[in-house]
Amino acid sequence: MVMLTSPLEPEHVERIAGAFSDRIEVIFRPDLMPAPRYVADHGDPSWRRNPAQEREWHRLLGQAEVLLDFPQHEPRPLLELAPRLRWVQTTSAGVGPLVQRLGLQDSYLIVTTSSGIHAQPLADFVFAALLFHTKEIGRLVEEQRTRQWNRFAGVELAGQTMAIIGPGRIGREVARIARAFRMRVAALARDCSPGRAESLGVDQVYSRDELHLMLAEADCLVVCAPLTPETEDLLGSDEFAALKPGAVFVNIGRGAIVDEDALLRSLREGRIAFAALDVFREEPLPADSPFWDMPNVLINPHSASTVATENAKIAELFVRNLGHYLAGEVDQMSPLLDKHRLY
Amino acid sequence: MVMLTSPLEPEHVERIAGAFSDRIEVIFRPDLMPAPRYVADHGDPSWRRNPAQEREWHRLLGQAEVLLDFPQHEPRPLLELAPRLRWVQTTSAGVGPLVQRLGLQDSYLIVTTSSGIHAQPLADFVFAALLFHTKEIGRLVEEQRTRQWNRFAGVELAGQTMAIIGPGRIGREVARIARAFRMRVAALARDCSPGRAESLGVDQVYSRDELHLMLAEADCLVVCAPLTPETEDLLGSDEFAALKPGAVFVNIGRGAIVDEDALLRSLREGRIAFAALDVFREEPLPADSPFWDMPNVLINPHSASTVATENAKIAELFVRNLGHYLAGEVDQMSPLLDKHRLY
Repeated sequence: MVMLTSPLEPEHVERIAGAFSDRIEVIFRPDLMPAPRYVADHGDPSWRRNPAQEREWHRLLGQAEVLLDFPQHEPRPLLELAPRLRWVQTTSAGVGPLVQRLGLQDSYLIVTTSSGIHAQPLADFVFAALLFHTKEIGRLVEEQRTRQWNRFAGVELAGQTMAIIGPGRIGREVARIARAFRMRVAALARDCSPGRAESLGVDQVYSRDELHLMLAEADCLVVCAPLTPETEDLLGSDEFAALKPGAVFVNIGRGAIVDEDALLRSLREGRIAFAALDVFREEPLPADSPFWDMPNVLINPHSASTVATENAKIAELFVRNLGHYLAGEVDQMSPLLDKHRLY
Repeated sequence: MVMLTSPLEPEHVERIAGAFSDRIEVIFRPDLMPAPRYVADHGDPSWRRNPAQEREWHRLLGQAEVLLDFPQHEPRPLLELAPRLRWVQTTSAGVGPLVQRLGLQDSYLIVTTSSGIHAQPLADFVFAALLFHTKEIGRLVEEQRTRQWNRFAGVELAGQTMAIIGPGRIGREVARIARAFRMRVAALARDCSPGRAESLGVDQVYSRDELHLMLAEADCLVVCAPLTPETEDLLGSDEFAALKPGAVFVNIGRGAIVDEDALLRSLREGRIAFAALDVFREEPLPADSPFWDMPNVLINPHSASTVATENAKIAELFVRNLGHYLAGEVDQMSPLLDKHRLY
């Protein structure tokens, strides 16, 4: 039995249920889930089931072999609640820390993610933010309010260097567009063997040991990495001090990759000219966070990746993986989460 | 004698004067020109020479064979003031209407423009504006002020159609980047022969007769065209009515290509969701223009093309053309203005 644990539009439920209707039963129970707050909302984390709903939910989980998304706030380990579970398809890319928290790293569970689904909207946000800064759009909006026509000379992206941490599906999409803007692109890579820059679609790769060298050249630093033991706290005071002065910083990865106090200091000193942040250590960003009031910070409520077409793409991905799963072609299912690397 | 009639930084004057110092004399007289108001300002149009300055200016013009930029506000026809003049290199691309106004269409004068120099900063502005709208940056800035964390689903550029009027150097640069964002790109072209779309780097070309067809498909319409008899008043009520509802409109060409009253009506009706305007029929935009107060308009004071590196590029271009000019290779000089087509 396939159970959908994320809110989904009827047409996408239909698409999934209809794809292999002779072979599988698909359960979708919106009455046991939070109502979506916006299109492609995968569930309000503050919502709770009442006891009757919870009993029914757990009865269904007990029969599920496949889940679309990990259920949230379960009182007992997932594999106890869902002993028949073999595969979870997630609606997010960055689920490594969740799998670790659920104690599933050493389980037999197959986890496929939606890595790649969000690459294009996230790349859109990176350039929305970068160009908002370089083309001085905020100042133009202010001057328009007061009807000021002040001609000026700006800067162009061509010739600037973008440094990417996390050249995965998202990072490579960002790199490809950056090169279309005639930027030079550098990336931090685990594997820096010859030909690696070319295969990633960047101009130069830097190893972890060379991180500060890469930062010193960056007009724009973009974090696209997942949260793993290797990336947690990767960027602190030393790294921001190593950044090229006046750089733009964009985080579309995860908040815990960054020492937020160090970032705030660099922003206040103007060492980092502008930051666009889609992710934070604590989300929703607490009302008393100093980030809200920073004039050189643009906050996105972790929605840079969310577009109205997302669920259609996830349904297609899920149906493709379902086909492979039913055919026993587990090796064809993708993108597969490496439960130890956590991405 | 080569005379520089546009403000220029000392290093660029040096570069030009030093390139062929044994063969030409280069005259640069900042005391007879307006002081630049910003980097790469090519002259405050409201500035005037006093009578003594004017006499000296005209004495120099009388000896000039080559000019960097057309002088402004001359009391008599240019070729009377500068009878030895053979070639003008301009610092702008869109000088066709000026050449027409100066009555030089049928003269022997060689005019090379700086077409192409501004392509990258202008393309940056097109995507700054488009992404400002699609990623809802204005709303994010407002919500940040009031510390609101409201997750939402946006739209992505991938799969959208961009229609380009004027697929010249600038339009093709915009098209190339649009395709990197995985947009479909259409262009209005005079020549729609087979293979034309491919050679322009777009997905489809439309003839002038098919303009409304192209507009109906456009999620974003970008005007990059020069002002010529063919493009003047090209876009009026009928064209805006033919546009796909909710489209974004960007004008980096010339204001007189557009019926501004019709544009305002379409913006008020929301038929055009958002417009980014770098050019207007009257510049500076008059203080009483309704555009200033439109909530769905972004005004750029005709500075989208201006970057701090512009004069360095113009100096290089001028030196390259000077080399060809001195070698008698007029056919190698570029980009050459077609004085009848006006671009």
